[in-house]
Amino acid sequence: MRMRKLKWAAEFLENCPYLEHEPDQNKGKWKQLLNCETLHVEIGSGKGDYWIEMSQMYPSEGWIGLEKQESVAALALRKAAHSLPNRRFIYKDAANIDEYFAPEEIDVIHLNFSDPWPKRRNRKRRLTDNRFLDKYYDLLSPNGCIIMKTDNKDLFAYSLIELNNHKFILEECDLDYRRNEHPEDAYTEYERKFSDKGQPIYRGVWRKK
Amino acid sequence: MRMRKLKWAAEFLENCPYLEHEPDQNKGKWKQLLNCETLHVEIGSGKGDYWIEMSQMYPSEGWIGLEKQESVAALALRKAAHSLPNRRFIYKDAANIDEYFAPEEIDVIHLNFSDPWPKRRNRKRRLTDNRFLDKYYDLLSPNGCIIMKTDNKDLFAYSLIELNNHKFILEECDLDYRRNEHPEDAYTEYERKFSDKGQPIYRGVWRKK
Repeated sequence: MRMRKLKWAAEFLENCPYLEHEPDQNKGKWKQLLNCETLHVEIGSGKGDYWIEMSQMYPSEGWIGLEKQESVAALALRKAAHSLPNRRFIYKDAANIDEYFAPEEIDVIHLNFSDPWPKRRNRKRRLTDNRFLDKYYDLLSPNGCIIMKTDNKDLFAYSLIELNNHKFILEECDLDYRRNEHPEDAYTEYERKFSDKGQPIYRGVWRKK
Repeated sequence: MRMRKLKWAAEFLENCPYLEHEPDQNKGKWKQLLNCETLHVEIGSGKGDYWIEMSQMYPSEGWIGLEKQESVAALALRKAAHSLPNRRFIYKDAANIDEYFAPEEIDVIHLNFSDPWPKRRNRKRRLTDNRFLDKYYDLLSPNGCIIMKTDNKDLFAYSLIELNNHKFILEECDLDYRRNEHPEDAYTEYERKFSDKGQPIYRGVWRKK
C-alpha cells in the first residue's frame, strides 16, 4: 500500500518505545524475548491491523510485524497504542529479513495483501519471488509454513507457481476464503473492503518440504 | 454433466462407425493410427464440443475424447457427424484408462469442466484424485502435461493441492482465464455460459517432473 509521506512519522518512529530499533540484536532470541513457542512474522504489515488483532487474539504466541514504509509503519505503531509482551514491530526492508532472524527461528510467515507489483519487470519485488522464498525457507522452522492472503488473482497465481517450483508443499488453498466464516483469523478493514465488493479473497498455506 | 437417459443412445453407439469399440486393441498404436506426433486425450468429453473444435483447429495433432456416460457420448458422436483422420472417441470409464493407452503414449491430458463431486466422501471420484494422477503420470510422455479448466473453485483448489503433492509441477495458472482472449483454445458454449455470468474460469497447466 502506497501513501503520502507523513511529516510526523520519522520523529514518531525515532522515539517510539514499541519499535525494535536494533532488531539484529535479537536475532535468534525472539522466542525467549516474547516468551513464546510459536513465532509469527507478518511481512509487509501495512497499517498493522492484522498484526494488532492477531497478537491480541493469540496472546501466548509471538507476533512480529515488519514494514519498510516509514509513514505506514508509523501509523501501525500509533494504532497499536501500547506494547504487549507478545508483540514487536520492525521498521525495515524484508529484503534483509535474514539479518533480523536466525535460521529456523520463525514458525509462520504471513503475507497479507502484499503489493502485487503487476508489471513483469517488477516481479522480483513481489514478496513471493524466488529470492524471497529462499530466505523464508531458511528462516522457517522444520514444520514451518507461509500463509498468504490476497485479493489479487494474478499475484496469487504467480505465487502458486513460484512456491510449487520451490521446496514448499501447498497444504490449504481457498479461492474464496471469506465466503465462509473464519473466526480464527483476523478480518481486517482492508480485507473487508474487497470482500464487500464481491471480490474473492485468495488464501494459501504452504509448508516446508 | 448428468443428463436424462436417451433411448436411442445405446443402439446409436453400437452402430457408430466413429466410435472405437475396442480401444484396448489400439493401445500403444494411437499415434501411428492418427498419423500424429502429439496425442491429446480429453477425459470426460461430455457433449464433445471441445474435442470436436480442437480436432478441427489442430488437424496435425491427434485428439481422443473419452466419455463414460452413454447418452452424453452418443450426443458427442452425433454432433461430430463425421470422422476425421486425427480424432477418435472412446465410450469407457477413465478409471480404466491404462487399458487403452500405453505408458508414455499421451502428450496432453485435458480435463474440462469435470464433475466436481462436491461431497467429501466422493472425492475419490474427482478426476484429479491421487489414484487418477498415478495413472496419468504413467501414461504421459516425459515432457507431457495436464491442462485443466473449470468454473468450480473448490475443484480447482483441490486439484492445485493434489497435483502439488504429486510428481507434477505447476507451469501456468490463471484464475480468470477468459478475461483475456485465447484464440488458441476452443471456447465452448458450456464455458461461455459461465463466463457470461461473470464467473471466472480457472485454468492450470501441470508438467511431469
